[in-house]
Amino acid sequence: MKTAWIISIGTELTLGQTVDTNGAWLAQRLAALGIQTDRHVAVADDLAATADVALAAAGAAEVVLITGGLGPTDDDLTRAALARAAGVELVFDETSLAHIRGFFAARGREMLERNRTQAMLPRGAKAILNTCGTAPGVELRLRGCPCYVMPGVPFEMRAMFERDIEPVLRVAAAGRALRQRRLHLFGMPESEVGDVLADLMVRGRNPEVGTTATLGIIGVRINAAGDSAAEADVLLDETEREVRQRIGTPVFGRDEDTLAGVVGRMLVGRGATVSTAESCTGGLIAKELTDVAGSSAYFLGGAVTYSNAAKTAVLGVDEELIAAHGAVSEPVAAAMASGARARFGSDYAVSTTGIAGPGGGTAQKPVGLVYIGLATPTDTVVLERRFGGSVPREAIREWAARTALNRLRTWLLEG
Amino acid sequence: MKTAWIISIGTELTLGQTVDTNGAWLAQRLAALGIQTDRHVAVADDLAATADVALAAAGAAEVVLITGGLGPTDDDLTRAALARAAGVELVFDETSLAHIRGFFAARGREMLERNRTQAMLPRGAKAILNTCGTAPGVELRLRGCPCYVMPGVPFEMRAMFERDIEPVLRVAAAGRALRQRRLHLFGMPESEVGDVLADLMVRGRNPEVGTTATLGIIGVRINAAGDSAAEADVLLDETEREVRQRIGTPVFGRDEDTLAGVVGRMLVGRGATVSTAESCTGGLIAKELTDVAGSSAYFLGGAVTYSNAAKTAVLGVDEELIAAHGAVSEPVAAAMASGARARFGSDYAVSTTGIAGPGGGTAQKPVGLVYIGLATPTDTVVLERRFGGSVPREAIREWAARTALNRLRTWLLEG
Repeated sequence: MKTAWIISIGTELTLGQTVDTNGAWLAQRLAALGIQTDRHVAVADDLAATADVALAAAGAAEVVLITGGLGPTDDDLTRAALARAAGVELVFDETSLAHIRGFFAARGREMLERNRTQAMLPRGAKAILNTCGTAPGVELRLRGCPCYVMPGVPFEMRAMFERDIEPVLRVAAAGRALRQRRLHLFGMPESEVGDVLADLMVRGRNPEVGTTATLGIIGVRINAAGDSAAEADVLLDETEREVRQRIGTPVFGRDEDTLAGVVGRMLVGRGATVSTAESCTGGLIAKELTDVAGSSAYFLGGAVTYSNAAKTAVLGVDEELIAAHGAVSEPVAAAMASGARARFGSDYAVSTTGIAGPGGGTAQKPVGLVYIGLATPTDTVVLERRFGGSVPREAIREWAARTALNRLRTWLLEG
Repeated sequence: MKTAWIISIGTELTLGQTVDTNGAWLAQRLAALGIQTDRHVAVADDLAATADVALAAAGAAEVVLITGGLGPTDDDLTRAALARAAGVELVFDETSLAHIRGFFAARGREMLERNRTQAMLPRGAKAILNTCGTAPGVELRLRGCPCYVMPGVPFEMRAMFERDIEPVLRVAAAGRALRQRRLHLFGMPESEVGDVLADLMVRGRNPEVGTTATLGIIGVRINAAGDSAAEADVLLDETEREVRQRIGTPVFGRDEDTLAGVVGRMLVGRGATVSTAESCTGGLIAKELTDVAGSSAYFLGGAVTYSNAAKTAVLGVDEELIAAHGAVSEPVAAAMASGARARFGSDYAVSTTGIAGPGGGTAQKPVGLVYIGLATPTDTVVLERRFGGSVPREAIREWAARTALNRLRTWLLEG
């Protein structure tokens, strides 16, 4: 099994009302198994079109993954489309019905009559258990090709793929292995990364090296092919070592690593704790730190102090300091960080104060100006950054949050 | 001009290492102009493949939008691919070079030699100003079909499309109008929405009505066709009225509305303020409130109190209350909300305390159990929700944040 098609079903996708994240997620998981996705097709909630695409995919690929259209409403037509494609009728699956009833019962609710339709399957198909929602998945063969249908809701799809589909595909996939790795950098412009890695980025090289950039984070992806996964991994290891040696400190992690997760691991390693004091990032740094499971071991808490009064009341920032320098200033960023450190009793604290826009800028303090503070057991330091007034609010906020987390990271590296 | 192809360029997309959000965003903007996207193709960073797809698109569609591959590194091949497709050479564009130099200068940096490549254009093409980054866009004709190339970084692409491409397409597009609207609901299960709207969701109806669901938010999309935008809008208005009448309070907004944005408008209308006290959502509610530009008018601040000590120190939650009931309990949720209201001096405060998992659950207090508090000038109320232990951490956090914002919304509606 070497090639796959991925089909995403939903008019909300073809019209662009929803971004399809399932295709990328599945392509990545398939690549990790050595299965290459040849095509990704998005089709509308249309019975005939869905049946046609499913048959075409089954004729062209060695496995077909389908997401979406399994809900309880009348525009959810995937079950019926697959029955048409297979030339069979829809039949009731009692096991699925019992599972759907159980799902409602666990939440203290009655199953609605409408949800019965989710227990219908094309004759000969097998239901796949949905551990996170009501819609069972469907496994069937079309033209002899295995097809797996999953719900469109990402977390339901992911749980189902990992639990019941991936293990089967892992066995079925064999032969030449494609392996990928991504390194993540912060603190070096993409053009400089391109210079440093130019000879590794030559087309046709194995491993292949490429870069992407967004809001300060540069991704370096390394794709290797080998006769076995182990052989490909050796190639990945060599190139990863080379990249890390050339880039140095800006490399903060690889693959699923995030700045917040890496900082968290460093804090755990030192038995140290952190807190946050956020103005312009409005809770984003705390949110990113607590996205990490287990973050309660080192994240003690945070204050989002949008108003000057809150900066004083919660963080103890001197009113006169704000009056003298303005809320967006280096001394206030420093006072916010040291205030949070004292209030939460943490070893470290990061702070942000800036102008995220679109309003609120002046000639002296333009939109995009952000001060980023870091209080440590020995010192309080502040960075000034100008992200540019034409950059939208959400980008300034994200960039500032990343800069703050990276500042803490580089401090911990040096310490 | 009625039909478009969208091409997204990048090996990170075909391998699923990056989710393409540009295609959906552009499809939606095109639909609003009455232009239907027939196909969306993702291709790797490959010169020949990109040239081929661009030529195929130019032969099949009336306008082609291309994103990605305009960066300064050696894997950015879009400029060269378009030159090959057009059968011309790449030439220097002095205006682009001056702009790139200016972009660096505004940030106090020197332009790197490597960025010069971003000022190369296929002969006969026109540069499009990038107000947010270094890579200029490209406008050219292939087989007589207008093609617009934009950077892959979403905020740069969006700014460029809105400023220089959309106005041109608006004039070029004419005739039968496709108009869309989305209503957003919270607090009614999708199957019940399906029952209530069943007769509107009949295939072939104009407007067409469909639903999607994710983490408690049900989207009802309405797509209407008419001889003019005005005619289609009348149809949309009628169906929107009908849906709102049948669903009632759970409808919280439409199109780009978010729960946080809607709550913000309601607060502004009343001259009221809000603060937050978050445990399991870890800053997510504050982040969502402050995603909204102008939120400083009503959001006074928030506390992220992960540890029990922080709940006591920052929010004044009684230590004995935590000892008696546990941090994840109805009384602590209430005390956190009223504590935040007092500390920040806001009219309202919302709070969350729960078990987001994956660890930390017990038989009595399983993963997914969340208490959501709301303190108001007259009362403090707490909701208990069980989101289910099989649901991942990020989903529990998002669902809890939405429930908290919606609780404030329904309170403001009633008041």
